[in-house]
Amino acid sequence: MNTTGKNYQVTSIGDIQAKGRVTLHNELALTGSEVSINELPPGVSVPFLHSHKRNEEVYIMVKGKGRFQVDGDEFEVAEGSVIRVDPAGRRCIAADAQSSLRYICIQTEAKSLVQFTEGDGVILETKPTWLQSAGD
Amino acid sequence: MNTTGKNYQVTSIGDIQAKGRVTLHNELALTGSEVSINELPPGVSVPFLHSHKRNEEVYIMVKGKGRFQVDGDEFEVAEGSVIRVDPAGRRCIAADAQSSLRYICIQTEAKSLVQFTEGDGVILETKPTWLQSAGD
Repeated sequence: MNTTGKNYQVTSIGDIQAKGRVTLHNELALTGSEVSINELPPGVSVPFLHSHKRNEEVYIMVKGKGRFQVDGDEFEVAEGSVIRVDPAGRRCIAADAQSSLRYICIQTEAKSLVQFTEGDGVILETKPTWLQSAGD
Repeated sequence: MNTTGKNYQVTSIGDIQAKGRVTLHNELALTGSEVSINELPPGVSVPFLHSHKRNEEVYIMVKGKGRFQVDGDEFEVAEGSVIRVDPAGRRCIAADAQSSLRYICIQTEAKSLVQFTEGDGVILETKPTWLQSAGD
């Protein structure tokens, strides 16, 4: 379902195994991040090392197994592994020979977050519709 | 595996079904985002609507089914649904009665991203170790 409202936009990434990579910045009109969902088939590596000029990256492994390297340090990753890489880190990611690897990559301007969660969120008195009783 | 280097940090979220929620900002010393991985059991809703003062949120559904609402608009979500919510959006999320719902929530300072991907990444000439041939 694709829909939009004054303060939100919704879409679906579709078949990530077939697409290989979906990027959300343009799709969802994001202003604070670029977010990609990625699927590397078994035995496939991103073909280059890369670094960034300004952006911090967070990688979240959501399915499968693979390998990651930063500045020559190499380590195994699997579902549940999460990695912060600073802009200067020279990074690459590959799927295992016998397993595909699905991961989310989040790019943000390093040092841009001002406050979060309790410091930024505002809990509202009105309850969500599905928790309102008939008397509300 | 938990490890760290000059330009990176790695951890694992552990058993998200048992923990219910894991937050990464402090765990990984993030500077551009707060990222949480969340698991709502069947029939469970976040018990309140909330908005934000400064932060844009991106929700990525990674497993299961549920419902989402923003400013009173209610819609179904499932694996692969992705949602941008602006700071002012009054939002809530719930798992379906028969399905748990696992999702990632990314908080960033709205309008903070300056550039990304081709505009920010630098592709390096040195290849990752696993793609170097013996002659490199």
